[in-house]
Amino acid sequence: MTAPTWIDDPAFAADKPFGPQTLPYGVVAEGVAVRVGDKALPLAPIAESFTEDLRPLLRAATLDPLLAEGRQVWSRLRARLRELVTAATAPDGAVLTSIDTARLPFTVGDYVDFYSSRHHAENVGRIFRPNAEALLPNWTHLPVGYHGRAGTVYASGTDIRRPHGQRAGESGPVFGPSVKLDIEAEIGFVCGGPVAGRVSTSAAPDHVFGVVTANDWSARDIQAWEYVPLGPFLGKSFATSIGAWITPLEAFSAARVPTEAPGPLLHYLVEDQHWGLDIAIEVEWNGAVVSRPPFSTMAYSFAQQLAHMTVNGATVRPGDLFASGTVSGPDRHQRGSFLELSWNGGEPVEVGEDKRAFLEDGDTVRITATAPGPDGSVIGLSEVVGTVVAAD
Amino acid sequence: MTAPTWIDDPAFAADKPFGPQTLPYGVVAEGVAVRVGDKALPLAPIAESFTEDLRPLLRAATLDPLLAEGRQVWSRLRARLRELVTAATAPDGAVLTSIDTARLPFTVGDYVDFYSSRHHAENVGRIFRPNAEALLPNWTHLPVGYHGRAGTVYASGTDIRRPHGQRAGESGPVFGPSVKLDIEAEIGFVCGGPVAGRVSTSAAPDHVFGVVTANDWSARDIQAWEYVPLGPFLGKSFATSIGAWITPLEAFSAARVPTEAPGPLLHYLVEDQHWGLDIAIEVEWNGAVVSRPPFSTMAYSFAQQLAHMTVNGATVRPGDLFASGTVSGPDRHQRGSFLELSWNGGEPVEVGEDKRAFLEDGDTVRITATAPGPDGSVIGLSEVVGTVVAAD
Repeated sequence: MTAPTWIDDPAFAADKPFGPQTLPYGVVAEGVAVRVGDKALPLAPIAESFTEDLRPLLRAATLDPLLAEGRQVWSRLRARLRELVTAATAPDGAVLTSIDTARLPFTVGDYVDFYSSRHHAENVGRIFRPNAEALLPNWTHLPVGYHGRAGTVYASGTDIRRPHGQRAGESGPVFGPSVKLDIEAEIGFVCGGPVAGRVSTSAAPDHVFGVVTANDWSARDIQAWEYVPLGPFLGKSFATSIGAWITPLEAFSAARVPTEAPGPLLHYLVEDQHWGLDIAIEVEWNGAVVSRPPFSTMAYSFAQQLAHMTVNGATVRPGDLFASGTVSGPDRHQRGSFLELSWNGGEPVEVGEDKRAFLEDGDTVRITATAPGPDGSVIGLSEVVGTVVAAD
Repeated sequence: MTAPTWIDDPAFAADKPFGPQTLPYGVVAEGVAVRVGDKALPLAPIAESFTEDLRPLLRAATLDPLLAEGRQVWSRLRARLRELVTAATAPDGAVLTSIDTARLPFTVGDYVDFYSSRHHAENVGRIFRPNAEALLPNWTHLPVGYHGRAGTVYASGTDIRRPHGQRAGESGPVFGPSVKLDIEAEIGFVCGGPVAGRVSTSAAPDHVFGVVTANDWSARDIQAWEYVPLGPFLGKSFATSIGAWITPLEAFSAARVPTEAPGPLLHYLVEDQHWGLDIAIEVEWNGAVVSRPPFSTMAYSFAQQLAHMTVNGATVRPGDLFASGTVSGPDRHQRGSFLELSWNGGEPVEVGEDKRAFLEDGDTVRITATAPGPDGSVIGLSEVVGTVVAAD
């Protein structure tokens, strides 16, 4: 048991996702804040409790200035925050406010989505290319990925309007609202620190500020028709949702595990430390848990993804966001997309009393995640939730 | 002949690319500027010659505030500029400075690259898939495209470092500097105006501030190995160069032509006015002209590209950039990439005294373009130039 602190909230405990071991950052109506239990602690009103150099970061309108700082500042800020929230008395000016006003807390630079779950890649290969090898030859040698649309990354809670688009029809393409609207349960990484190219796997963690849940909404019918030869475009670009609170990478010190290596790797992808993460994901469809994808089964870590993404000299900037790709485990109830869960619609999924293949208007999907924290505590990733609204 | 103006520069004439009919915007050491002949006219020192609402746009550090305004403001500013630069006497405070300090003049939001030249798509299909149909089935129904990396869009003049990456080898992939470094001669479109989704082809021009030359540098060996199934990634993401001066869309009123329609189109891609552009492109390799791609041969216009890109509800923001895809005409000397010009290296290209297949270290590529202007004048697009430096 830990001593009682001035934050009198049963959700602010070591065995709860948002206790003092987690302290994710976000932006609420009152400005930059840290999440404590189910409340937000805005940081501008308590800025005087931090060293002078940190105060402008806490009084900013977004997390952008903090992201630009880098590991040393992030560590100092977190250590001081930890002291303040675990003290017996509140710092001068402290107020606890609602987490419900949390919005997208940073300016998204480039958004890259990977494809680093072997089970997901194999499932998709079997569904779409039934007469070929499930994995394409490059998959075991590099983390396959592509650029997504940064301008349509939204915070959790944003409604998702069903997209229009072209899909294959009997005699040529037809146009209309997607009939195969899907999710992809993923983990996202928010970049920070100095602009850099050719980031090694060892240096990669210094360029990652924190971790979020992500839902890469996907219109499978649009995607299937458009994606050759240049990859997914309109089937993905209408919306990507991320959790509104960014859990600092430092919080995952007890969650590190080896990845399930895809095979022998070229030198620049070899890690000197493991950066797989033992994150347990849960996918709720209209309140019913339909899947529990284990992030520990990913084949490439975020450090390998970042090293690959920059090995050609491309730079990573503060605010760049990259996501893991759909997380699917080996078992059926560990699949991170409805495409896989329903095997492209052929095996409908039980959602409470209903059966579903793909998303219907009004459906709500909620993805949450936790990881082991130090000393038996639990680290939380803030939920990413979205409700499908009808095409207009 | 037009009357002499206070700008006494033979390059500032109706029959020259950067006469008073063109007036492209950029940012030089002195701030926001307009190009007049081979000089820059910084706008902050003459801001008092404009209405009060326009002055903050002229005193800004970048073109971002101007891009955010929209068509009405763009037109008013251009009309007043035209008056000022064609007057007999200089406005108070006017100084002409060097264009050599021009840098990337705006913050790139999302960057999308299309693939809208039929000749290019057919050439690439024949080279990479010799035993299949040259065009994939979707190509005649939609402008195929993908997201590129916004953080590595550079202004003309930036050196291009040869990228490292994986390519296919005899027994698995090998890693090293690209051995098939190439260009793609393209035309780019810089977006502005209000954030909007589902932009119609009729509304599209109001969301395009101006036009630039673009070189989408490409490492063909890296691209060929990585690009299935999610499209080009590291083979492209190391660098895209654009001309440093943005020629306003309004300057192209006399250059509009029908596109070479790819076939019957779905309703949302049908234009009520033609937005093909009769832009003549010239590609110089180490000073030798190696190609003259005609932009008038493109199959999809920028209006169709923008309508497609947003038809799924994805928004377009000020600062978003999209490019046409490689421009290749039907003739051999109209091909916009060295992949095509050298037929994947099999038919080396004469570059002055030398023969080339792909780019060697030290090579310089310069792309320029012009279009017909009103009353027999010529509209210029500012050059995009880059020199390849050795991998580090």
